[in-house]
Amino acid sequence: QIAQQTAALFDRGSLSGKRVFITAGPTREALDPVRYISNHSSGKMGYALAEAAVDAGAKVTLISGPVNLPAPQRCERIMVESAEQMLAASLEHIDECDIFIASAAVADFRPVAVAEHKLKKGTEEIMELRLVKNPDIVASVAARQNKPFTVGFAAETRDVVHYAQDKLSRKNLDLIIANDVSRSDIGFNSDDNAVTVVSHDDVQQLPLSSKRQLASKLIEIIAAHQEN
Amino acid sequence: QIAQQTAALFDRGSLSGKRVFITAGPTREALDPVRYISNHSSGKMGYALAEAAVDAGAKVTLISGPVNLPAPQRCERIMVESAEQMLAASLEHIDECDIFIASAAVADFRPVAVAEHKLKKGTEEIMELRLVKNPDIVASVAARQNKPFTVGFAAETRDVVHYAQDKLSRKNLDLIIANDVSRSDIGFNSDDNAVTVVSHDDVQQLPLSSKRQLASKLIEIIAAHQEN
Repeated sequence: QIAQQTAALFDRGSLSGKRVFITAGPTREALDPVRYISNHSSGKMGYALAEAAVDAGAKVTLISGPVNLPAPQRCERIMVESAEQMLAASLEHIDECDIFIASAAVADFRPVAVAEHKLKKGTEEIMELRLVKNPDIVASVAARQNKPFTVGFAAETRDVVHYAQDKLSRKNLDLIIANDVSRSDIGFNSDDNAVTVVSHDDVQQLPLSSKRQLASKLIEIIAAHQEN
Repeated sequence: QIAQQTAALFDRGSLSGKRVFITAGPTREALDPVRYISNHSSGKMGYALAEAAVDAGAKVTLISGPVNLPAPQRCERIMVESAEQMLAASLEHIDECDIFIASAAVADFRPVAVAEHKLKKGTEEIMELRLVKNPDIVASVAARQNKPFTVGFAAETRDVVHYAQDKLSRKNLDLIIANDVSRSDIGFNSDDNAVTVVSHDDVQQLPLSSKRQLASKLIEIIAAHQEN
């Protein structure tokens, strides 16, 4: 710990002086006061990236959905619930942001209306739930005139590289970190991960390793791309 | 700990020799491999009831949805995800059960179909999700010919006693423990709770206290009712 802090003081890390925003974890979209739609994201990858970015000398803001992880040291953490709250927190100081890493598993849809009282079960066997598309946080950031270097994630169950390349150009991103969530040994709740880094001119496979090791490697790759 | 175990050996508790099944926590209903519908239940109340029942001399089976709580000591725990899994685990040895306490916050509805692959976000702004009613676990237990003494929970945001009395007779239960989840100081994620115990001939208010203290009191009340 002291060694790291000393290193941060004397060694100008690869992200020294950079402001990095990282979104992490799932979002929760309320159906009523007690029920919600969410997903299996643990937030571990985003939190590991925040730690690695701090170690690389960056000033980090972690914008986190509901997870069971302690706040990393030497980093500002903002807790949010819904995609709309995450978007608002992401954009609030976006002009100060050099690198935006969207690792959160944002819910694509939210209920059209949130019931004020708990919905009572009626006699109907079938219920239709109307959902409306959530704002696309990483695309909103990448669409800005002075956009930060913008890194997206793609969690897929098939055709991982194909979907990642499509997402990269469609959303005007600089880098995509893609992983195959159909593999049970890696991904959402695991401590390990194996990813594919897709840029506009390159596809790079990173082998299975701990999320901590992977995060350091990814921060190196992001720093190198961002300098170009 | 040793004191408790010694007490269990020598002191014949109020539930000595009884088999108690307790459901706890939320259920998760999968939309696809990564997304689900769930609710804010922490499982704390059910776990506290399991501990109190063990202390009262019962042989306890805790049937638990996904929560971040360690298994209580000296009790069998079965982990489940969905309402259908919780029903199957509840009924598997139901003939051996003397007291069934349904503290789980079971999702009322689940998606009609679970997608094998992660659903892709299309161009549509609105999505209709078709949900089908889940099995009613506590009513299924209470509908059996040799039903155990059956205790339900009611989490309401208004008209708490009214809804509890209705549920009690409609589902053929013996006791309902009702709480007002619109109060932010108690309930789902809190360590404290205040409940109303509703039987066929009585309404009893229990004041705000820790879930641990409340659980001991509730087990006493359940044991007294079950003997009648």
